Amino acid sequence: MPSDVNSGLEGVVAAETTISLVDGQAGRLLYRGYEIGDLAAHGSYDRVVGLLLDGEWPLRDEVLPPAELSPTVLAALRGLPTSCAPLDALRTAFSAFGAERRMDWPPTAAQARELIALGPAAVGAFARLRDNKQPVNSAESEHLGAAARLLHAITGEEPDPAKARALDAYFTVCAEHGLNASTFTARVITSTQSDLASAVCGAVGALKGRLHGGAPSEVRDQLTQIGDVEHAEVWIREALARGERLMGFGHRVYKTMDPRAAALRQVAERLAADADWLQLAIDVEDVALRLLAEHKPDRPLKTNVEYYASIVLDGVGLLTDLYTPAFAVARTAGWTAHALEQADHGRLIRPDSRYVGPEQRPLPAGV
Amino acid sequence: MPSDVNSGLEGVVAAETTISLVDGQAGRLLYRGYEIGDLAAHGSYDRVVGLLLDGEWPLRDEVLPPAELSPTVLAALRGLPTSCAPLDALRTAFSAFGAERRMDWPPTAAQARELIALGPAAVGAFARLRDNKQPVNSAESEHLGAAARLLHAITGEEPDPAKARALDAYFTVCAEHGLNASTFTARVITSTQSDLASAVCGAVGALKGRLHGGAPSEVRDQLTQIGDVEHAEVWIREALARGERLMGFGHRVYKTMDPRAAALRQVAERLAADADWLQLAIDVEDVALRLLAEHKPDRPLKTNVEYYASIVLDGVGLLTDLYTPAFAVARTAGWTAHALEQADHGRLIRPDSRYVGPEQRPLPAGV
Repeated sequence: MPSDVNSGLEGVVAAETTISLVDGQAGRLLYRGYEIGDLAAHGSYDRVVGLLLDGEWPLRDEVLPPAELSPTVLAALRGLPTSCAPLDALRTAFSAFGAERRMDWPPTAAQARELIALGPAAVGAFARLRDNKQPVNSAESEHLGAAARLLHAITGEEPDPAKARALDAYFTVCAEHGLNASTFTARVITSTQSDLASAVCGAVGALKGRLHGGAPSEVRDQLTQIGDVEHAEVWIREALARGERLMGFGHRVYKTMDPRAAALRQVAERLAADADWLQLAIDVEDVALRLLAEHKPDRPLKTNVEYYASIVLDGVGLLTDLYTPAFAVARTAGWTAHALEQADHGRLIRPDSRYVGPEQRPLPAGV
Repeated sequence: MPSDVNSGLEGVVAAETTISLVDGQAGRLLYRGYEIGDLAAHGSYDRVVGLLLDGEWPLRDEVLPPAELSPTVLAALRGLPTSCAPLDALRTAFSAFGAERRMDWPPTAAQARELIALGPAAVGAFARLRDNKQPVNSAESEHLGAAARLLHAITGEEPDPAKARALDAYFTVCAEHGLNASTFTARVITSTQSDLASAVCGAVGALKGRLHGGAPSEVRDQLTQIGDVEHAEVWIREALARGERLMGFGHRVYKTMDPRAAALRQVAERLAADADWLQLAIDVEDVALRLLAEHKPDRPLKTNVEYYASIVLDGVGLLTDLYTPAFAVARTAGWTAHALEQADHGRLIRPDSRYVGPEQRPLPAGV
C-alpha cells in the first residue's frame, strides 16, 4: 500500500518533474530529454548545469561564477577540527555562505550557480586546511570547469587534462538522479518557501547517511586487492565461489546496465591511452561481466555507477573520504534544479503521522 | 487523492509516532499522553525534553548539559556578517557543532540534549556579537533551564523569574507538534542513517520558510497598535468591519481553541500580577473573543498559539527577528525526538516522482 508507513513512501508520487527520467527497465537516464551517454560524451558538466537549471541545452559554453571563498566561509572552515568529516565541512560552508548572502525566497538560477561554484572551492579549501596548507587562490581556476576547479582547489595545480575530463564525466553522470532522499529533502525544505542554501544544507545532511551516500570506496578497495588484470579472473571466481558480493555490480532500479556506468566506460575508453588506471578498470570490468554472466546466466548483474565512480575518483587522486563530498558537489546541480522546480509549482509538503502512543494520562502525583 | 502530487502529501501517513497527538477536533495536544495544559502549568521545558526524548515523565528535575560554545562554533558565529538572519546563524552553529562532535549514526538522546542545550547559547551569542558585545560565559547559567539560559545568553544577566517562567511555558508548548514540514525534514534526513546534527540543520532550514515559520511578530504589531485595553474594542470592531484578519486567532488544524494558547493563558493569568504586559494580552484576548463570537456566531475564531507566542516573546524582551530562532531552539526537542524514533523504527524515506518532461531527444548538432 503506497500510503503505508512502513513503505518509506515508496510508490507515493511526491512531485511531478521535468528534470530527469530514471527508466530502470530500459536502463535509460535522461536529463530534460537528453540521454546521459550523449551528455557525458559530448557535453560538459558546466553545460549540464545550465541544462538542469534552465531547461534547455545551452548554446554556448557555460562558465560558473567565480568562487573566491569569503572571509565568512573561510572563518567557518578554519574553525573546524582537521579530523571532522569533509561532508560536515561542506554543509557548514554552504550554511555560512547562505547566511552571508541572505539567500531569501524565491530561489533563482543565479543563486544555484553560486552554490554549485562554491562546492569545489569549499571542499578543496577544507582538504588543504586539514593538511596544514593554505587554500588556493581560486581566481587562478576561474577559466576551468567545476570538476577541474575541484582538482585545482585541492592540489593548487593546473589539472592533467585526462583527469579533468574523466572527473567532468563523473560530475555529469552524478549531477541528477530523480527524487532520491537528499533531493526530496531539498524539495521539502523549499516547499516551506525557505531559501536555496537551506535546501542544499539539508540535502548534504541527507547524503551523509550510509543508506544514501553509500560506501563508494569499496570498489576501489576491491580493485586494489585485484591489483592487476592478470589476477582478476582468479580473484573474482574465488569471491563469487565464497558467495561474496562483487562491489560495483547490480542496482536496485536498473535491471540492465546502469546507463551512468555505460556512459563513464565510453569516456574511459577514449581516455585510456592517457590514463592507464582507466585501462585497468575497463579490463577488470570485462572479466567481471563475463564471470557474472557465467555465475547467473538468467539474470547476470551488470556494472553500476559506483564502479566507475570509484575508479575515476581514485584515478584523479582523491582521498577516499572526499568521494562522497565530490558527489555532493556534483549533485548540487540536481538539488538546486529540483528546488527551483518545487518553488515554481509545489505546495507545502506536509504528510500526516499516525499516533500510536499512550492514551491521555495525568501527570504523576506530586509533580 | 492522498498520493496526488498536488496534495503536498496531505493525508499520506509518512510515520507512526508515539511522541505527540495533535487532535484538531477536540482541541487536544498530548506529549506522550500528557495534556499540554498540565505540562505548561506543572512541568518545565527541561523535563518535557526528558519526556519527549525518553518517553516517560522524568521523576527528577532535568538539567541540560553545559553549553559552553567551543572555539569552532564561536569561529563560525564570529565570521558571520552582523546583518545575517539569526536563523541562518543558528543553522551554521548547529552545523559547525555537528562537524566538531562528529555526530555519527546512530543518534542518541545524549546527542539530542547537547543540541538542545546549544540552541540558547548560540542564539544568545549571535545576538550579542551583532550588537558588538562579547558572548556571555555560559558557565554562569548552567543552573538555569533552557528558556532562562536563552535570556541570560542574550542579556548576560540573571533573568527576572516571571519572564523566565513565561518563556519556559512558551518553550514547553512549542517543543513538539507532530509531523510538520521541519519535523518531517528531520525524519527524512535521519532515514538515510545520517546524524542528528544534519537532521537539525535541515529542520532549521525548513522552519526558515514563511509557510512554516510564519510571521510571528504580526500579533505584536497588532497589540502595539491597540496599545491599551480601553482602545481594544473600537480597534478590533473597525478591523473586522474592514474585513481584516485578526492576527493570533484561527488555526488550520484546531477547530476549537488551540490548546497551546489555552495553556499559555493559564500561565499568563498566574504571572500577570508580576508582569503587566501579560495582563494586557489577557484583557485584549477577552475583548477579541467576544467580538469574534458576535462577528461569526456559528463558527467563531478562537485564540491560536501565535497570540501568546508573540506576547511572551515581546514581553521577555526579545527582538522580533529572534522570535523564530527562539521557536527553533524550543522545537529542537521535538525534532530530535522524532529523529530518534525514525532511527529506531523507520525505513529510508524515498517517495517517487512522476516524469512530465520532454521525450528523449538528440543533442543539437554541432555540440
